[in-house]
Amino acid sequence: MIQTQSSGMAGVVAGHTAISTVGKKGFGLTYRGYAIEDLAEHASFEEVVWLLLNGELPSYEQLVAFREDLRSQRALPDALKTILEQLPATSHPMDVLRTGCSVLGCLEPESSFDEQHAIALRMLGTFPSMLCYWHHFHHGGHQIEVETDDLDLAGHFLHLLHDTSPSEHLARALDVSLILYAEHEFNASTFAARITASTMSDLYSAVTTGIGTLRGPLHGGANEASMELIETYVDPEAAEEGVLAKLNGKEKIMGFGHRVYKSADPRSEIIKRWSQSLCEETALTQLYAIAERIEGVMRREKGLFPNLDFYSATVFHCLGIPTSMFTPLFVFARTAGWCAHAFEQRAENRLIRPAAEYSGHGPRSFVPIEERP
Amino acid sequence: MIQTQSSGMAGVVAGHTAISTVGKKGFGLTYRGYAIEDLAEHASFEEVVWLLLNGELPSYEQLVAFREDLRSQRALPDALKTILEQLPATSHPMDVLRTGCSVLGCLEPESSFDEQHAIALRMLGTFPSMLCYWHHFHHGGHQIEVETDDLDLAGHFLHLLHDTSPSEHLARALDVSLILYAEHEFNASTFAARITASTMSDLYSAVTTGIGTLRGPLHGGANEASMELIETYVDPEAAEEGVLAKLNGKEKIMGFGHRVYKSADPRSEIIKRWSQSLCEETALTQLYAIAERIEGVMRREKGLFPNLDFYSATVFHCLGIPTSMFTPLFVFARTAGWCAHAFEQRAENRLIRPAAEYSGHGPRSFVPIEERP
Ligand SMILES: CC(C)(COP(=O)(O)OP(=O)(O)OC[C@H]1O[C@@H](n2cnc3c(N)ncnc32)[C@H](O)[C@@H]1OP(=O)(O)O)[C@@H](O)C(=O)NCCC(=O)NCCS
Ligand SMILES: CC(C)(COP(=O)(O)OP(=O)(O)OC[C@H]1O[C@@H](n2cnc3c(N)ncnc32)[C@H](O)[C@@H]1OP(=O)(O)O)[C@@H](O)C(=O)NCCC(=O)NCCS
Repeated sequence: MIQTQSSGMAGVVAGHTAISTVGKKGFGLTYRGYAIEDLAEHASFEEVVWLLLNGELPSYEQLVAFREDLRSQRALPDALKTILEQLPATSHPMDVLRTGCSVLGCLEPESSFDEQHAIALRMLGTFPSMLCYWHHFHHGGHQIEVETDDLDLAGHFLHLLHDTSPSEHLARALDVSLILYAEHEFNASTFAARITASTMSDLYSAVTTGIGTLRGPLHGGANEASMELIETYVDPEAAEEGVLAKLNGKEKIMGFGHRVYKSADPRSEIIKRWSQSLCEETALTQLYAIAERIEGVMRREKGLFPNLDFYSATVFHCLGIPTSMFTPLFVFARTAGWCAHAFEQRAENRLIRPAAEYSGHGPRSFVPIEERP
Repeated sequence: MIQTQSSGMAGVVAGHTAISTVGKKGFGLTYRGYAIEDLAEHASFEEVVWLLLNGELPSYEQLVAFREDLRSQRALPDALKTILEQLPATSHPMDVLRTGCSVLGCLEPESSFDEQHAIALRMLGTFPSMLCYWHHFHHGGHQIEVETDDLDLAGHFLHLLHDTSPSEHLARALDVSLILYAEHEFNASTFAARITASTMSDLYSAVTTGIGTLRGPLHGGANEASMELIETYVDPEAAEEGVLAKLNGKEKIMGFGHRVYKSADPRSEIIKRWSQSLCEETALTQLYAIAERIEGVMRREKGLFPNLDFYSATVFHCLGIPTSMFTPLFVFARTAGWCAHAFEQRAENRLIRPAAEYSGHGPRSFVPIEERP
């Protein structure tokens, strides 16, 4: 048995991947070899999805066809709508998506791995529909039409949410954040999804695992927690005081720190610029000032830097997205990464089944129930 | 970064546990220090669930109260029934359970980890109800009453399935197989469920991950595949010929082999004795003879031994359980193990986030879409 430092598997190599590098020397964050900075500057989310799933950037014709394919996958089966209507208005949207994904696996099962690409597109197409259908049914009282003419997921989602097409600038802000969220190597949700795939289970099960795992506040849930924190304070001074008090109380501040990055999250720098520009555009400059102050306090007091979730929260807020939908947005994006990893796992599969160190009771004799104290 | 043999994480220590040992020298298979042979001989499934969740065997009074608690958790919320009615008759029962578990997480969310014990009991109580409600609605056309007076899960499930209480001997056969299936250290579904728990996500998400991961044929799905194999053959000679042909074609035979056990699965010996006795009782001796012949061929040709799934299939078949419900039975039992592991993970949590070795493309410059070939 190979002994390793096992706490949280920090630094333990669990397998190999050709999909991305996270903070690798000479690479930084790359998807299929392309720097995240270039992708966030020049590519669209759909282009990045294609890249992740297929390994190469699409040609113009391929991208046009792919966008059309994705657009054609947005409708929801009637049974799924009925089910979304049965879920409480008070459910967490992550629970709704986890359920919606699982239901789709009942209604349109993966009968062969040959269908995996089509099913990945189906999930990418339906997730925004599920979330918005459920949301408007319970919070607005009507059954919305879930198909729009918007070509890209970012514009489509904002359209469904607000019932009007967003400006190009706002849609692009969301598009960039989807690019940043799309993939991140063996993060917890992706690694768990790979284990599901390694039993040769279906793709819906792998993605359901991803959603349930992303939900936690130490992972995707951090963007919602960041927003709740930032919103607590009326101004930068109150934020400084409040965060200091939390740190004194040994509380963790969500949206800071990272398992792999040690001095900065390259995605944070990109989304921070968008945050500044959007906060100015939407006259939420105080929000930005509060966020920056929290960043400063965390650096000064703990040497910790913001991860992607921190300023993403402010961007989503400027876009008028309810806080409880922040982690679902992460799902829309990361579905691309989860599927790419499931495909990779399947292509060269071996069951993922590690060993455990035993820390429990020694062997003991059974005591019949009459003789127990 | 710690380099390890990474294929399928064979032998890689991913953490520690006090819940069970699998094939550990001087232990064998133990739950909380008690040998599986003793538990299968002297304990009931409910006693084992208590042991797994609480670390010690219950007193008589604790066990009586625990059975009552479990019995009181069998009713299904109306919304869940409506949803089960919307899932197709053709769905795989594992997809139904994965969905049912996720729906319960929407209807009765875990608002604090203090509720984890109550929620574990709720899942143990409702899973048989979900499966049988869905089954009878779609295959018998009626909405069954999901509560029975049967004290234990085994008798209750057989009662719901067949609409009549089973003999004590048959119920005990199922009870023993639930004991054998209840827990198995860092198997794929449990390890994935622990990763979900490690993000501080909710218990329903962790168990949903477990179900989706168990579903694959390399894991829990093997018991269904074993039955399909055994049923293919009319007699032992045909089985020998058929299995030899499959081995020649490099096919894997489900229900054989194991990641950790190298010469025998101690659970198989126990369930095999039950299989023989039940096959005699139900006049399915030819089925048993076929299974034994396949076992003999696998030993002779490949040096491989049956794992728990192989003879469990014949036991479930003798109990009149449809093959597609075999893996769901595994879920009823393993829910105890998944929950025990989620509790353990939470009690001393650190995010499970391993590292990956990169095997992909080197850094490359972005090519604008107009310039791509
Ligand atoms: C991401 C995260 C889970 C990585 O965790 P990890 O590698 O397991 O690191 P640990 O949690 O063991 O933290 C190491 C130390 O830094 C501290 N620390 C890490 N993140 C912190 C945070 N956000 N706020 C305050 N302290 C933090 C820990 O308290 C610990 O201090 P200690 O050694 O004095 O106990 C962790 O930084 C965290 O919980 N961040 C907040 C949640 C978050 O933003 N998640 C999204 C990640 S993209
Ligand atoms: C359980 C299992 C996944 C463990 O797998 P593992 O440790 O990854 O072992 P591998 O799949 O790498 O198998 C090692 C070798 O034994 C062979 N082998 C293992 N199980 C086999 C089986 N059930 N039938 C035929 N050959 C088998 C493999 O083909 C491989 O041979 P090779 O070295 O010539 O390629 C594997 O034994 C298996 O797939 N069994 C069938 C599914 C099953 O019953 N699962 C339930 C487990 S409780």
